Amino acid sequence: MNLISVSDPDDPCVSAFRDVKERDLTGRQGLFVAEGEVVLRVLASKASLCAPVSVLIAEKRLEGLREVLEALPEGTAVHVAPQAALDAVAGFHLHRGILALGRKPAPVGVEAFLDGLPERAVIVGACGIGNHDNMGGLFRNAAAFGTAGVLMDPTCCDPFYRKAIRVSVGAVLRTPMAFGASGGAMVEALQARGFEVLALTPSATQALSELRPAPRTAILLGSEGPGLSAQVIARCRPVGIRMSGGFDSLNVAATSAVALHHVTTAAAP
Amino acid sequence: MNLISVSDPDDPCVSAFRDVKERDLTGRQGLFVAEGEVVLRVLASKASLCAPVSVLIAEKRLEGLREVLEALPEGTAVHVAPQAALDAVAGFHLHRGILALGRKPAPVGVEAFLDGLPERAVIVGACGIGNHDNMGGLFRNAAAFGTAGVLMDPTCCDPFYRKAIRVSVGAVLRTPMAFGASGGAMVEALQARGFEVLALTPSATQALSELRPAPRTAILLGSEGPGLSAQVIARCRPVGIRMSGGFDSLNVAATSAVALHHVTTAAAP
Repeated sequence: MNLISVSDPDDPCVSAFRDVKERDLTGRQGLFVAEGEVVLRVLASKASLCAPVSVLIAEKRLEGLREVLEALPEGTAVHVAPQAALDAVAGFHLHRGILALGRKPAPVGVEAFLDGLPERAVIVGACGIGNHDNMGGLFRNAAAFGTAGVLMDPTCCDPFYRKAIRVSVGAVLRTPMAFGASGGAMVEALQARGFEVLALTPSATQALSELRPAPRTAILLGSEGPGLSAQVIARCRPVGIRMSGGFDSLNVAATSAVALHHVTTAAAP
Repeated sequence: MNLISVSDPDDPCVSAFRDVKERDLTGRQGLFVAEGEVVLRVLASKASLCAPVSVLIAEKRLEGLREVLEALPEGTAVHVAPQAALDAVAGFHLHRGILALGRKPAPVGVEAFLDGLPERAVIVGACGIGNHDNMGGLFRNAAAFGTAGVLMDPTCCDPFYRKAIRVSVGAVLRTPMAFGASGGAMVEALQARGFEVLALTPSATQALSELRPAPRTAILLGSEGPGLSAQVIARCRPVGIRMSGGFDSLNVAATSAVALHHVTTAAAP
């Protein structure tokens, strides 16, 4: 690392971190801002698919983080500032005291991504997930259950949004992903490569708990509320989570955890 | 319902709704404030265990909600105010336009609660869940899988906090609960009544997916980070969710969904 002291919040060397709340909503030319120690540890680890660009931390955090900072690639700029200057740059009180700038992996299309997968693989397909909490939770679960990757249709929100990265506890930075195919095209691309595509929907008669998963399985999830479209469901194997409470309602991230647990632990046929 | 027009934010008839953000953090003498249409529907439904006390809504919401409001007990005060007055009462912009005041059920101790349960029952035991998002998610999942109730140790946060109720999509208002026993006492009370108590912990050698649940099963969950204490785990059957990602990390609400799905769908021995 390359330690740089910063005292002036207007110093151009930290301009990438300026007003992160507002800038989160706009593009950053392939860069993203992440926050907090947990995420920094992932970004600095070998598992990360994203390159660290620079770090901005509060003075008081420097000693405790030295070991993580030393794991960053040689020459990575680490800007150290008093908490007040950090807050002034970020535009709000950054109680975690850590911001990191990273570079997203080069975008990969769904077909190219699928062509590189092994014989046995579990994939998550996200359609219309627009909530950053849900997106973060979905990535966290995808990583926990060792899925081969997450596919996102064009109506999904950006998983590299700061809050989604934080909720994912860094899983967004280490999980392969591919973008661009709409629900129908995603299903087609998966089926063409031997994936059984499960459409998670409360309307299904097949219970998830009785499903014997195929070696290549994709789990398709729609947004809360509308869920997956009828056209997409019709092209897949519809599967439902059996609930007994007269309260048919699981959050989409919880749904992904339940489905991934079943698919990764139930015996294949 | 009893419609009352309110134009002055200082009108004493809406004082219970004043500055809800701040007052959320303090006691309300057995009352709670909930927000949004989804939660109001639960509060007005037969499934609710809480009595509606009064409602405060924006004028523009009145027509769309008439049917729900008419399901409230006769005489329930429904205060209707312009959005600006509503915002002034609440102390922030209330874009949902709906607040409801309800009365919590009478507090029940763990032993009395357990004595009333049927021969087959699934219970969730929460130890040290201090995050309102997690508490809300846990209740949402408990309701979805039809559990008999949620037990909370004295270090859990209040599930009737506004955000927890919202995240639970109203499940907090319709799920039986009991308070007060610490982890050890909770385990003892459960075991004395024939419950097999599963301690969810990554340290377990028994995989959840291979567990055959007992007719009476309790699922104990600790806070993210520290998890359940070693003393509590030692008195239970430790069970782990098998993860394959080298990323041993599920959110506690996701953990509850996975465990409840397995316990409610796997065949009993």
